[in-house]
Amino acid sequence: MPEPISDFYAVIPAGGIGSRLWPLSRADAPKFLHDLSGSGQTLLRDTWDRLEPLAGADRISVVTGRAHRAAVEEQLPGIPDENVFLESEPRDSAAAIGLAAAILHHREPDVIIGSFAADHVIRVPHLFDWAVRQAVETARKGYVCTIGIQPSEPSIGFGYIKKGDGVVIDGAPEAALVQSFVEKPDFETAKAYFADRSYLWNAGMFISRADVLLAEIEANQPELHAGLMELAEAWDDRERRGPVVDRVWPSLTKIAIDYAVAEPAAAKGRLAVIPGHFDWDDVGDFASLAKLNSHGRHNDLAILGENARILSDAASGIVVSQTSRVISLIGVRDIVVVDTEDALLVTTSENAQRVKGVVDALKLSGRGDVL
Amino acid sequence: MPEPISDFYAVIPAGGIGSRLWPLSRADAPKFLHDLSGSGQTLLRDTWDRLEPLAGADRISVVTGRAHRAAVEEQLPGIPDENVFLESEPRDSAAAIGLAAAILHHREPDVIIGSFAADHVIRVPHLFDWAVRQAVETARKGYVCTIGIQPSEPSIGFGYIKKGDGVVIDGAPEAALVQSFVEKPDFETAKAYFADRSYLWNAGMFISRADVLLAEIEANQPELHAGLMELAEAWDDRERRGPVVDRVWPSLTKIAIDYAVAEPAAAKGRLAVIPGHFDWDDVGDFASLAKLNSHGRHNDLAILGENARILSDAASGIVVSQTSRVISLIGVRDIVVVDTEDALLVTTSENAQRVKGVVDALKLSGRGDVL
Repeated sequence: MPEPISDFYAVIPAGGIGSRLWPLSRADAPKFLHDLSGSGQTLLRDTWDRLEPLAGADRISVVTGRAHRAAVEEQLPGIPDENVFLESEPRDSAAAIGLAAAILHHREPDVIIGSFAADHVIRVPHLFDWAVRQAVETARKGYVCTIGIQPSEPSIGFGYIKKGDGVVIDGAPEAALVQSFVEKPDFETAKAYFADRSYLWNAGMFISRADVLLAEIEANQPELHAGLMELAEAWDDRERRGPVVDRVWPSLTKIAIDYAVAEPAAAKGRLAVIPGHFDWDDVGDFASLAKLNSHGRHNDLAILGENARILSDAASGIVVSQTSRVISLIGVRDIVVVDTEDALLVTTSENAQRVKGVVDALKLSGRGDVL
Repeated sequence: MPEPISDFYAVIPAGGIGSRLWPLSRADAPKFLHDLSGSGQTLLRDTWDRLEPLAGADRISVVTGRAHRAAVEEQLPGIPDENVFLESEPRDSAAAIGLAAAILHHREPDVIIGSFAADHVIRVPHLFDWAVRQAVETARKGYVCTIGIQPSEPSIGFGYIKKGDGVVIDGAPEAALVQSFVEKPDFETAKAYFADRSYLWNAGMFISRADVLLAEIEANQPELHAGLMELAEAWDDRERRGPVVDRVWPSLTKIAIDYAVAEPAAAKGRLAVIPGHFDWDDVGDFASLAKLNSHGRHNDLAILGENARILSDAASGIVVSQTSRVISLIGVRDIVVVDTEDALLVTTSENAQRVKGVVDALKLSGRGDVL
């Protein structure tokens, strides 16, 4: 077992609900609290287990909503109290990661933080380790560093990072500058990216010295930075934290870390990237979940649910069963069926991205009880 | 209000489960106990209401399984006790209708019986009346008479009756001999039948003097006839009925009335037919149910269920909702979703006939609890 990386602190933002996975993902049972990879445990716990060898059990923090505190602590019984950073309401990723950076920097000025989503699936952990260790060495040199996934196919479902010139860093032979970020492409473009090999999937992983990250936020979002500083300064004072959080947190600028940090840093040549050679998926929708759980066989119906009672004639697609109901599928292909106690979804893989629209429609039509 | 027809007795065989409508239809909630037409009451009650003006409330009998006695009496509070004929186990339609014929003949030798399924949908009752009144007049002359539905489209889902020469009968201007029965055709043949106009849908309605019907059974199925006679003779004797039923009923030949009576009678020129000009459907599967409940609009999602909470984007097909769950359909067409407390079916209109196979598979795989 290799030693944890010195000066390193892992941060797990555990925020998003995962609306494209409704009705499996809910406000009170967000994506990161489900076992979507077939590992037998939640994605959050998988994330923790991946990070523990890199950071150590007492150096992993989680940023989550107050409503999820109990669930997070149940999933991560080893987490020290002071490593759970609670948001009183969601303020997007720059605030969440910035809060962790500010608190940890206040506690430990030289700390290097690495932020990894709570709800992604990663296989082949030693390749993940290798990428993170390179990223930390790159961060030590003052870069903000991301890990871009080497594509395994021409996907149109992810944004891309265009890798530029290499940078010479001890312990990070694959480090390169980020030339630019590219939005989700069409299929022809995705094929060209795939052939090119210098385009990597943007997996939203950021590794940086906390002071460097905060300086980027200060340069690009000074008001957000001021708020984060005020929060960090009061955080570890039991009496002051509450009033400061109540006053400051709701006023923080809502912005994604991509815009507050990554893109400006890239423009200045201060964003580096390490290619990740591990299997990665953000499980963005049911089509992705189907693929992830069909054992790579295209004509296999993926089934999620410990007590699933399925009767199906070779349908492809996915069934998520959270009830004891018998589910019978006849003559349907690429079908998505999600059966929960209070809501049922029937769609197709092709329409998987449109599930978020249902969530919006349910809100608008006053049926938020099933969200 | 016209008078009930003299000497007439209506018989409602309420037997089949309707396996092609699983999981809506069940052993303990067969098709005839559901509101499938949107009338607000069960098909059985609809059937009763159609027959009452023709026969009178005290001259409608129901042949059903012991398990359904309570449900039948609840649906038909006006039915006299002596008009409920209970089968100890299903022995097919010749035994069921033959039993009613034998008992009613024993009680009233000149009675004319008309047998009408408990689970068909008929619209435009006065056209039904007119067909039945003609059929009874035809039956008085010694014919076994059926009512064949004038097709409203070239259906491949029904068997056909080929109408032959007309017969001259007072009060039955449309009576004709049946030339032959034809199995469910392919679509080309169905189109030819539809253009021809002398092919009618076989709706399984039989009207006959009880003695004529019994004579046909005697000629074609003498053992069945002997058993029915023995049952009828003992039926109204409270002490003798039980032991005779227990001994004789399970031994009766299992055969459809089509083979025991209709086809042989047709071959001898003793089967007449009256064309029915009313809307009729046997609601044989979910495709048929969808059509029946989509108000004739092809691109309309049919919804069954008083408390249905459906969120759907213009899908066609049918949703049957027996729970309080929100059901969301995205991007699916001609879909069939049947949501019940313990079983869920997802298929397409095209595959509707294959639902029966699921019921068989559930039996074989030991999941009969949901049948």
